[in-house]
Amino acid sequence: MSELTVAAIQTAPVFGDLTGNLEAALALVPPGCDLAVLPELCTTGYQFVSREEALSLAEPVPDGPACRRLLAFAAERKVTLVAGLAELARDGGDGARCYNSAVLCRPDGTWALYRKVHLFWDEKLWFAPGDLGFPVFRACGTTVGVMICFDWIFPEAARSLALAGAAVICHPSNLVLPHCPDAMITRCLENRVHAITANRVGTESRTDQPLRFIGQSQIVSPRGEVLAACAGAGAGAAVARIDPAATDKRVTPRNDLFADRRPESYHL
Amino acid sequence: MSELTVAAIQTAPVFGDLTGNLEAALALVPPGCDLAVLPELCTTGYQFVSREEALSLAEPVPDGPACRRLLAFAAERKVTLVAGLAELARDGGDGARCYNSAVLCRPDGTWALYRKVHLFWDEKLWFAPGDLGFPVFRACGTTVGVMICFDWIFPEAARSLALAGAAVICHPSNLVLPHCPDAMITRCLENRVHAITANRVGTESRTDQPLRFIGQSQIVSPRGEVLAACAGAGAGAAVARIDPAATDKRVTPRNDLFADRRPESYHL
Repeated sequence: MSELTVAAIQTAPVFGDLTGNLEAALALVPPGCDLAVLPELCTTGYQFVSREEALSLAEPVPDGPACRRLLAFAAERKVTLVAGLAELARDGGDGARCYNSAVLCRPDGTWALYRKVHLFWDEKLWFAPGDLGFPVFRACGTTVGVMICFDWIFPEAARSLALAGAAVICHPSNLVLPHCPDAMITRCLENRVHAITANRVGTESRTDQPLRFIGQSQIVSPRGEVLAACAGAGAGAAVARIDPAATDKRVTPRNDLFADRRPESYHL
Repeated sequence: MSELTVAAIQTAPVFGDLTGNLEAALALVPPGCDLAVLPELCTTGYQFVSREEALSLAEPVPDGPACRRLLAFAAERKVTLVAGLAELARDGGDGARCYNSAVLCRPDGTWALYRKVHLFWDEKLWFAPGDLGFPVFRACGTTVGVMICFDWIFPEAARSLALAGAAVICHPSNLVLPHCPDAMITRCLENRVHAITANRVGTESRTDQPLRFIGQSQIVSPRGEVLAACAGAGAGAAVARIDPAATDKRVTPRNDLFADRRPESYHL
């Protein structure tokens, strides 16, 4: 397997400007990039005020305009994209529901979907909890897993992806708490995977609980090295070359982090 | 529940000086301390060269001299001690075996035992893998769990202890890799527990693979704050006051880190 150029795209979206936000994000994808991760809810912005508002801004996958645009961009630029968006889904019975999702779009026009498992704070009012577990996908010659933002605090999320074979964890985010960048180093070390955390910047004050997003998008190696990172303010991109095959779980001649797990000793 | 004074005792042991090493460690336990954690293998030192050597330096629990001395000190000073030592155990059939253990000694003369589950590198040659799982113990008015050194890299260790009710994780260590101090902050955040990592300093060169131990003993709060820490060189103690009841798993009005776990979504 050859090396990949990967990017974490850091954006400063304007709430509700679906087309403008997506075009601004795509404009930051560097030429020659193989895999680019865009933030959580990168088209809509974050701070919904009602379930109706979330539903009105959500789009079906893959037939909505955002997903169609992502697939077209992926094909044109031969890049795999992972982007967070509000997904509108029809269920069998009671009508529409909304997921905090991320869509993976390949250059060949195929796509895959992750729906955020661990919802943060008021997201529980607008979104249904993810019902697809933590699947992994083949993309750009490697195996990719997706988790979204607050999933970071549950070690089971990255662990599930890594045990299922993910070499690269794509992590669209809208982080407001300070701890995640450091914690993702632990996630990479304990699982020997790469992680690409794409976060946003800026503030939203659509309720009486203003939110400030911390930026600090980053790419971390399986050895816990921060290969590239953005600052805490400003849109931009963190770009790095990675070898996706470099996820050997052996940390000493006698220790393999996966073979050494002892599930019979755990109560989880 | 009232506050506790807790300490991480950082030592510079001399290989094989069982009595001297233990007395030097106990001399660092501060007056009025409620709970003190001593390093992994704090009596023997770390770098054994054969299984026979490990067996010759190991002691039974609780009848060996180290455990008897720990119990006497605990009673005299009204402190709960958690100390790593090489445990000599008789099994039913093939004679003696050795565990990399930690013994918890209460002021009332009772004790409890943890045997290291995840053995590091050549420890696999001298020690049997721990066969007691990750139990938790009542001590000094709270619930305490124990893990040893390399257990840190397996998120299942701290998770198992926290899910079983541990409010304070006692973590005797002989760390040589640089990542653990930061990773323990993640462990505390993701589980909302306190952690007391007691590490050693110095070097051992008893084989052609010299080891340098990194010190940096620390006490971390459930919010990921480093409450006290030692430097990377020198014996000493990190001491802090903690409220062991302050382990609320709620991180927002709608998020409880344990109730929000979704085991049906994990494959572990």
